[in-house]
Amino acid sequence: MRRPARVLLAGPGRVGSAFLELAAGRPELEVAAVVRSTGPTVAELLAEGGWDVVADATPSDLATGGPALAHARAALGAGVHFATAAKGPLVRDHGALRELARRTGTGFRFSAATGAALPTVDMAEFALAGARVVAIEGVLNGTSNYVLDRMAESVDLEAALAEARRRGIADGDGRPDVAGVDTAVKLVAIANAVWGTDLTLEDVAVTGIEGLDPDLVRRAARAGGAVRLVGRAAPEDGRVRAKVRPSRVAGDHPLAGVRGADKAITFETDSMGRLTLSGGRSDPRAAGAALLRDVLLLLRVGPRA
Amino acid sequence: MRRPARVLLAGPGRVGSAFLELAAGRPELEVAAVVRSTGPTVAELLAEGGWDVVADATPSDLATGGPALAHARAALGAGVHFATAAKGPLVRDHGALRELARRTGTGFRFSAATGAALPTVDMAEFALAGARVVAIEGVLNGTSNYVLDRMAESVDLEAALAEARRRGIADGDGRPDVAGVDTAVKLVAIANAVWGTDLTLEDVAVTGIEGLDPDLVRRAARAGGAVRLVGRAAPEDGRVRAKVRPSRVAGDHPLAGVRGADKAITFETDSMGRLTLSGGRSDPRAAGAALLRDVLLLLRVGPRA
Repeated sequence: MRRPARVLLAGPGRVGSAFLELAAGRPELEVAAVVRSTGPTVAELLAEGGWDVVADATPSDLATGGPALAHARAALGAGVHFATAAKGPLVRDHGALRELARRTGTGFRFSAATGAALPTVDMAEFALAGARVVAIEGVLNGTSNYVLDRMAESVDLEAALAEARRRGIADGDGRPDVAGVDTAVKLVAIANAVWGTDLTLEDVAVTGIEGLDPDLVRRAARAGGAVRLVGRAAPEDGRVRAKVRPSRVAGDHPLAGVRGADKAITFETDSMGRLTLSGGRSDPRAAGAALLRDVLLLLRVGPRA
Repeated sequence: MRRPARVLLAGPGRVGSAFLELAAGRPELEVAAVVRSTGPTVAELLAEGGWDVVADATPSDLATGGPALAHARAALGAGVHFATAAKGPLVRDHGALRELARRTGTGFRFSAATGAALPTVDMAEFALAGARVVAIEGVLNGTSNYVLDRMAESVDLEAALAEARRRGIADGDGRPDVAGVDTAVKLVAIANAVWGTDLTLEDVAVTGIEGLDPDLVRRAARAGGAVRLVGRAAPEDGRVRAKVRPSRVAGDHPLAGVRGADKAITFETDSMGRLTLSGGRSDPRAAGAALLRDVLLLLRVGPRA
């Protein structure tokens, strides 16, 4: 048997801890170091050599890219595969990281940042191999979907958002969720992976659900459908256009059945028709499982095709 | 650039023709021979050497395994990857073929036989990498699902089946569809791929929808749910148990929303929760696209992990 792959984990928070626990059950992996706020840095450990993958579970920072961006540059620059659960690198420097990975023959995966257990990017890359994706459409944020479902039951937005916080559905105060920002971030990351583009958050036209007429939500539900906060991206006239906005969907639309804090994504393809993937946990354990999936795929498949 | 991979196609029917057309758009592939009922055989062409993959689109034969089984043995035995759209080899000799592939370091894929465009096996292998699948549950046959939807609208089974034939939904007379056999075949193939087992059709307890009380179907629909022909498999007491039977599901069950000739599969996992994949075309073009997916994954990823 080959020696286990040496994994460097950055970020020992809840996602990192879940990753550690799940990775302990995999004989093909050895998590040989965990980088914390004190002690050696990722760059220092990388300089020692002998690493196969850096798994990053540091907090997301959309404004600067955060520590994950620095870790991505260090790992990929050193010829080491990189997987992250943080959203920062995906909206700040995606194109440059992809180019760096290409140059050093490494892989860069981030499924935990684009829907936790919901395997959005992996679905497009493997399960739809050979098909051309002509559009993606998703309910990508659990908090705003939960709030919309409660609004359909005549609970007002602020009360529903407070519930989502109390029930641990919302990350932080949930404002970026209902504003559509979280959906836009995931949409950008998925679109960039699917079409090889360099979209940033600024390229997405975003309308959240804060200004939504509650009566519209109730009327849609009474008619058997729903209002969903939908992120949609599609190539159009030589570029990929992306937008996030509340949309009324009929009862037989695949996104109508996404309940509460669940998520879903629909891929329209040229040769395989329309495929919808829904469900998947989105707690820290699920994000840790997604990070583990990325690490295993990097070791098995290597760089993106 | 590397030379294109040399592909040998067996079976120039509707699926094979769709494969040819789709493969023509892929510069990394060269379909260098098509085996027809006259002319050189797969074995003769394999003996010439220089092949990377055999793509098989011959008709399914569940009783003997059919030509696809012979092609599988020839290709894998000769150290050439094998992809098939035929169901025969999956229920007749799956374990021995897997062992042969292991011994010769080749890969064996069959996604076109387990749901056409619906990527059942690929989903488990890649998108759920690292998670343990604890159960699968699927609506895997479009004809029986179409018939059940029509029965909910008070059309009787025979009339609905005649409609399915007229509309090109049923393959042949549709009897194996409503008897649950087609569902059982796909369930066996998916279970064997997911858990590495050697189930055959005889291991599945199958109840079709022919004897179903039409009133039960109408009552389920009136209550907002549905009756679905569900294939379910799960490890239990050290072996995988598989059964096919009509099941009443509530309106919020992920399989309730599978309409008409659509298909869906749910994976229950240990760390990622429950994920449902639905939709996907199931015409010859979609089956050709699935065969192309298999060929591309064999070339990119090689043998199963």
